[in-house]
Amino acid sequence: MKRTAFFISDGTGITAETLGHTLLSQFGSIEFNQVTIPYVQSDELTREAVNRIDRAASEDGAKPVVFSTLVNDTHRQILHTCKGRVLDLFTAYQKPLEEELGVPANHKVGQSHAIRDQQAYRIRINAVHFALDNDDGARTRHYDQADLILVGVSRSGKTPTCLYLALQFGLFTANYPLTEDDFDDLRLPDALAPHRHKLFGLTINADRLSAIRSERKAGSRYASPRQCDMEVRALQALYNKFNIPHLDATELSIEEISTRILAMTGLQRRLQ
Amino acid sequence: MKRTAFFISDGTGITAETLGHTLLSQFGSIEFNQVTIPYVQSDELTREAVNRIDRAASEDGAKPVVFSTLVNDTHRQILHTCKGRVLDLFTAYQKPLEEELGVPANHKVGQSHAIRDQQAYRIRINAVHFALDNDDGARTRHYDQADLILVGVSRSGKTPTCLYLALQFGLFTANYPLTEDDFDDLRLPDALAPHRHKLFGLTINADRLSAIRSERKAGSRYASPRQCDMEVRALQALYNKFNIPHLDATELSIEEISTRILAMTGLQRRLQ
Repeated sequence: MKRTAFFISDGTGITAETLGHTLLSQFGSIEFNQVTIPYVQSDELTREAVNRIDRAASEDGAKPVVFSTLVNDTHRQILHTCKGRVLDLFTAYQKPLEEELGVPANHKVGQSHAIRDQQAYRIRINAVHFALDNDDGARTRHYDQADLILVGVSRSGKTPTCLYLALQFGLFTANYPLTEDDFDDLRLPDALAPHRHKLFGLTINADRLSAIRSERKAGSRYASPRQCDMEVRALQALYNKFNIPHLDATELSIEEISTRILAMTGLQRRLQ
Repeated sequence: MKRTAFFISDGTGITAETLGHTLLSQFGSIEFNQVTIPYVQSDELTREAVNRIDRAASEDGAKPVVFSTLVNDTHRQILHTCKGRVLDLFTAYQKPLEEELGVPANHKVGQSHAIRDQQAYRIRINAVHFALDNDDGARTRHYDQADLILVGVSRSGKTPTCLYLALQFGLFTANYPLTEDDFDDLRLPDALAPHRHKLFGLTINADRLSAIRSERKAGSRYASPRQCDMEVRALQALYNKFNIPHLDATELSIEEISTRILAMTGLQRRLQ
């Protein structure tokens, strides 16, 4: 049986999706067709959403599951007339929060991913540009401004992790690729040596590394299992020698790598 | 009165934070000290979290608000012994979902931001590298592979938006800076002309642009209100002439810009 999951929001839809994905990941056996309807900010748009839900209900022959973060009371009432099973964030939590905090919810729409203040916006943009300017060892002279310098072999996930740390947490993160040259004499590159306390290492399973590299340069020495295995071993030896905290990224998502780095280093995020 | 908000999770903590931020944004008058405790995957770690919550309760002289996405029943029971007000995602929604879907929740921890499959991981990484390789007009020969080409003046938010679209939705997005040369004769740059249907424009308020540019190059012509005003007007004329869909990014967060672009273009995300 096909099922449709709707994520309905007066803002970006990100909260409704995050909430919904987390809950649905607990029911892994069911496949959902996922539909996000963001910026539902009028009676009219809410009725359109209800129509889409009702159409899915009759096409699927099963109730859609509807995750909603609508805060407007009228819109919520309209939404609850649909033929889906509505799981509504504010119905569940608004009362206990108002009770606990002693003030009423303000019912302003589109608050959760709105620009908070220009200061936070700038931190974020600057962090992204820092990550780009200091990607892949391109420049090393700004390492004194870095919160963190991520190291690892080519294609072990350094760049996406740095960008995620910048976008999500406002951290200034550089990354530097360790190569054969560095492994030969088991020493830290000159650019890294003065910043040893900022280093964090990624490791990766050699077979997986070989598969990722093969996608990029099939049949190359660079992608060969032998080369990957050599690099991964030497990398581990380097981490051990210089006591560099590190993490095996093989089975982890970018979110998991990033949040584990925060937890392991105790780095304070610059954005909440 | 100081209040502490805790985000407790057996995984990254991202869902608990997203949920919590959305709910707390409805109570804008109260300042919260925010603490995320991720990877709470044992009785022991749960008890440690309870201790931290209880300490905050006595230090603040007010009940902390605790947003939890713990799925393990024992851990949830332990958490509920704390001196905070616990808002627990699974207590609120698990029953109605099990009822609706007709299967029990699997209670597996750390599911929501785990790597789903290697295919999705690769799409994401490739999208990030595409955004980097095609940032700021650096290369234009891969535009046939782009899902979207973001245009706008320098420092209007193109790069962070492309990276967000890559990380969050797996979209292949290039960006190209429009400059005075393009405005002089009001024509599209040669690199863009064949891809007109893929263009999306950002606009920005001239004063805000000037402020952002001043941070980078204070006192320069580039940052002057006059220059910014000229560029912003010419940009608008170009969008009008070529019918390029566009969006005023001045008051929007990266998340809002990105999700509005999806909504306006009808682009299908490559990642859920």
